[in-house]
Amino acid sequence: MAFPKKKLRGLVAATITPMTETGEINFAVIGRYVDYLVKEQGVKSIFVNGTTGEGLSLSLSERRRVAEEWVTQGRNKLDQVVIHVGALSLKESQELAQHAAEIGADGIAVIAPFFFKSQNKDALISFLREVAAAAPALPFYYYHIPSLTGVKIRAEELLDGIQDKIPTFQGLKFSDTDLLDFGQCVDQNHQRQFALLFGVDEQLLSALIMGATGAVGSTYNYLGKKTNQMLEAFERQEFTTARNYQFCIQRFINYVIKLGFGVSQTKAIMTLVSGIPMGPPRLPLQKATKEFTANAEAKLKSLDFLPLPGLKEGNLEARS
Amino acid sequence: MAFPKKKLRGLVAATITPMTETGEINFAVIGRYVDYLVKEQGVKSIFVNGTTGEGLSLSLSERRRVAEEWVTQGRNKLDQVVIHVGALSLKESQELAQHAAEIGADGIAVIAPFFFKSQNKDALISFLREVAAAAPALPFYYYHIPSLTGVKIRAEELLDGIQDKIPTFQGLKFSDTDLLDFGQCVDQNHQRQFALLFGVDEQLLSALIMGATGAVGSTYNYLGKKTNQMLEAFERQEFTTARNYQFCIQRFINYVIKLGFGVSQTKAIMTLVSGIPMGPPRLPLQKATKEFTANAEAKLKSLDFLPLPGLKEGNLEARS
Amino acid sequence: MAFPKKKLRGLVAATITPMTETGEINFAVIGRYVDYLVKEQGVKSIFVNGTTGEGLSLSLSERRRVAEEWVTQGRNKLDQVVIHVGALSLKESQELAQHAAEIGADGIAVIAPFFFKSQNKDALISFLREVAAAAPALPFYYYHIPSLTGVKIRAEELLDGIQDKIPTFQGLKFSDTDLLDFGQCVDQNHQRQFALLFGVDEQLLSALIMGATGAVGSTYNYLGKKTNQMLEAFERQEFTTARNYQFCIQRFINYVIKLGFGVSQTKAIMTLVSGIPMGPPRLPLQKATKEFTANAEAKLKSLDFLPLPGLKEGNLEARS
Amino acid sequence: MAFPKKKLRGLVAATITPMTETGEINFAVIGRYVDYLVKEQGVKSIFVNGTTGEGLSLSLSERRRVAEEWVTQGRNKLDQVVIHVGALSLKESQELAQHAAEIGADGIAVIAPFFFKSQNKDALISFLREVAAAAPALPFYYYHIPSLTGVKIRAEELLDGIQDKIPTFQGLKFSDTDLLDFGQCVDQNHQRQFALLFGVDEQLLSALIMGATGAVGSTYNYLGKKTNQMLEAFERQEFTTARNYQFCIQRFINYVIKLGFGVSQTKAIMTLVSGIPMGPPRLPLQKATKEFTANAEAKLKSLDFLPLPGLKEGNLEARS
Repeated sequence: MAFPKKKLRGLVAATITPMTETGEINFAVIGRYVDYLVKEQGVKSIFVNGTTGEGLSLSLSERRRVAEEWVTQGRNKLDQVVIHVGALSLKESQELAQHAAEIGADGIAVIAPFFFKSQNKDALISFLREVAAAAPALPFYYYHIPSLTGVKIRAEELLDGIQDKIPTFQGLKFSDTDLLDFGQCVDQNHQRQFALLFGVDEQLLSALIMGATGAVGSTYNYLGKKTNQMLEAFERQEFTTARNYQFCIQRFINYVIKLGFGVSQTKAIMTLVSGIPMGPPRLPLQKATKEFTANAEAKLKSLDFLPLPGLKEGNLEARS
Repeated sequence: MAFPKKKLRGLVAATITPMTETGEINFAVIGRYVDYLVKEQGVKSIFVNGTTGEGLSLSLSERRRVAEEWVTQGRNKLDQVVIHVGALSLKESQELAQHAAEIGADGIAVIAPFFFKSQNKDALISFLREVAAAAPALPFYYYHIPSLTGVKIRAEELLDGIQDKIPTFQGLKFSDTDLLDFGQCVDQNHQRQFALLFGVDEQLLSALIMGATGAVGSTYNYLGKKTNQMLEAFERQEFTTARNYQFCIQRFINYVIKLGFGVSQTKAIMTLVSGIPMGPPRLPLQKATKEFTANAEAKLKSLDFLPLPGLKEGNLEARS
Repeated sequence: MAFPKKKLRGLVAATITPMTETGEINFAVIGRYVDYLVKEQGVKSIFVNGTTGEGLSLSLSERRRVAEEWVTQGRNKLDQVVIHVGALSLKESQELAQHAAEIGADGIAVIAPFFFKSQNKDALISFLREVAAAAPALPFYYYHIPSLTGVKIRAEELLDGIQDKIPTFQGLKFSDTDLLDFGQCVDQNHQRQFALLFGVDEQLLSALIMGATGAVGSTYNYLGKKTNQMLEAFERQEFTTARNYQFCIQRFINYVIKLGFGVSQTKAIMTLVSGIPMGPPRLPLQKATKEFTANAEAKLKSLDFLPLPGLKEGNLEARS
Repeated sequence: MAFPKKKLRGLVAATITPMTETGEINFAVIGRYVDYLVKEQGVKSIFVNGTTGEGLSLSLSERRRVAEEWVTQGRNKLDQVVIHVGALSLKESQELAQHAAEIGADGIAVIAPFFFKSQNKDALISFLREVAAAAPALPFYYYHIPSLTGVKIRAEELLDGIQDKIPTFQGLKFSDTDLLDFGQCVDQNHQRQFALLFGVDEQLLSALIMGATGAVGSTYNYLGKKTNQMLEAFERQEFTTARNYQFCIQRFINYVIKLGFGVSQTKAIMTLVSGIPMGPPRLPLQKATKEFTANAEAKLKSLDFLPLPGLKEGNLEARS
């Protein structure tokens, strides 16, 4: 097998797992969700069952069925479907990795264990390698998010020689603001075809200039189009324009962060923007308050991210 | 159903999950392990699949089988077998709770979710209640360990009115050093028959004087006898004696903490002391080093916790 | 010089620095404050210019004048006046130490540097030694408060061999809940005459059973009498009584912690209980709100810590 | 007074305080240090008595004399001399602010109090305002470094309406990696002439694209020239070149971070690169080890930041 088949690049939406009001997975809307991402947001790759998708709050069988539905619905529409298979139990992670291979996913991603934490680079790589080995034909991505896992091992150190240990290693989702670490991931690996995907949406521009090859995040579900415009301006070296797009996105995120922003709130916002019902989150998360949703809606409108009442959704493209 | 059937009290060993050298669960030694706890350590209640038992590193089916084996082997030998059924996925936690009821466990315990964290008391109680409801005939214990979960909700606040929300609530494992919080759990609930079990073994004496009704911990696997002697001295109001036992226990724990002390090291120590092979831990943990084991053994001997070479194991009782 | 002249023991009040409404130090009430501590609270030793005294918010010259006033007013009334001379600047700390010796203080105490932090035991001891050497005739106490300083060095390790490095070392104020560390301070130094003073007032009982020889804290300003009753019950080995005193104290502290409890609030409470005006704190602290004060007062009354309206202050003794 | 007299821009070196081997301030080399910054590093503004300058480890009188010497030596050579006057004691901070005005400094900067921490924006602004008011003719800069102070108040919120409270407010040193916060400082204040200076040297490029107007840092003492080349490439919109300069700088910083990098090590590196003896740090810091210095020197040479043996210092310009 020759790696990479095709490089994961551009915007990757960390998908929400839609649920019904009674808390069951709402598989029925996933097809519509795929179309929305592609047509309305210009996003053609997805990261399934990650933090945004409440992957770790789902049962193992639910994770399998969700992965399967995204692969099925994304066929011939999406470029790449990466399945997050990280779990506290190595055995379950391996089972999910194998399943991802069976259903024809394009890659797997794994978060560092965060209950027991790996004490050093070797321990962490050993864990990741065991998962990767369960899907030897799939590109493997490491999901680096130290603020959630508490793991102190720097990504740059982890990447040093990683392909000797994990031959399927193809890149990482770097969800941290340490751009020394990220910059050195880029600098030290420029001869490899790694996907170095940034995961802090609200400051993506700062990572692009450090050499990010793409981005994975929850806001690309509903701000993908705006973010793609930023990426295009950056490609054209129009930096003032790119910065203005970044600031516009920041204004929204900055606003909702002050209200309290997490997966519950992401579900509410996506419902507002896409019109597709995302439903409530699973416990231990609780549904976003009505107050949050009303405030977020007003802000989206004031920033021109939502059509004004009376405008049809089809007009969104023309206006923004 | 009238609660409590019988109150969980005294020392409760947080059981290790024995593994073979290849990392599979070594069910074969669990019977011997039960006998060891009862006969050599004087410990008659256990807490299965908790942190020490690597519960969250096991697959769901392994957790079920481990629980089953302890219940089976403990029958007519142990007073109480409490199964930790906490999981990041509510559905899986419920499934484990129901299973614990089916196999005849004496209670279930649940840790607060620690990936997504409950934002307030209501959210946390909602999660716990849903698990408890899956085993409505079993006493329910909350496993409070803020240093691992990052949950900031104080136990005392959680307990306020908890039986209205969780009728099966019977107590908690309080694994924290905040004895204001613990003291107020005792003070405010003195008319209820809660089991208020302390979970920081190395300072149990400080919780006894605050009113702890028992203790759950990993060191009771191998220091149960010594700790029981401390409990007895405390009961007899011989405080200098109790303190001397506590200091003796502290000397050992203080020593191994400096070497790096976690579940891997607990497995090595238990193997040394009991003679029953506990095996290596699962990834992401790594086996204790030979250097650790040699140092721990020397310390155990110097403190008279291990027989000197040449003495038979049967002499342990006589000497200590 | 032979150490110790007299051992620091029992309750030590961490004194508040009284201020006028315009934020200047209110030296005029310090004499009355001394009498109040001795007569109403039964507290005869003090710890001046510490955290409670806003020592680090005062200018160097203010710290000198405050120290001087307490020494002067305490003469023939107080047993011991210990001056906290810790500062970020070693030179200033030395200057304060020398001044403390000149004015006839009974000891000095030093907090670990907390902007730049000592990277290891040697670095910390070097700093402390340089301060101690500036007052070679005064007993030296280390103020251990890792939650505020961020210093990770355990007290027990620091004490190991400390008199070789700091001949005037006489003990520590241990403001932490790690009773393994505290217990080992006691256990490993039982042949030395160290003052091992506990600094977490709300769980003092838990440290008494570990061997604390006394306590330093802010609540002894207004709960000294009640705490002395606890100490006496403990001495008489009446543990249920001691626990009941501890619980009573905890009820108050637990209540105010939920309202937000710090030095500002301590000033408000002390004003309420003693009738001596403590005034507002210095910036960056802000005065306790009126709402806090009203709630605290109601709680004090409901717990019988404050006389009911209509009773004179002189009746306090008779009632409590 | 009309603000700003002249805007603080470009690179600002956070000056080291040179010391003799016996730990006294080495005033004699400050003149040479000024010349070195201007001629060899192209750095014409300085930030005195900050973290790098061990400002908080100096006595008040030392801080005054250090400030004075830099102002004197910098006259007609430096563009701007900003004095950091932050202190735990408001009174001392005010005294230093007034002194900075008297000696003719170009501005003052203040860190948020970090022992007692301001509980909210109002409390923090009240503190800063009181300091600023002591030097009403000097531009005021806020030194934002949450990782050291523990203050959670976001810079963007603090800046909202700050000139109403602090009329002399002219900008901030933003020493954090949260580029959402920094970006919004830029975005929301684009009509004001604030100096928004980034303080995380190793990722300056990421802040330039967000709109940083300059930078304050310790590495500009010895990597100023290289960083100025990056700034110039950025100005010319040559982003690949700018990134390469950033990566080159990162390689060095990344290397020394792994060895343990702080003010002590900065002093050793500056001595190596400039040839001017910076001396040891003050306690509680300890001198960098010889091993560190040797490793840092080898790395500097391998990256071509130091001349090879045999080359004269004067050749440095030609080579780099």
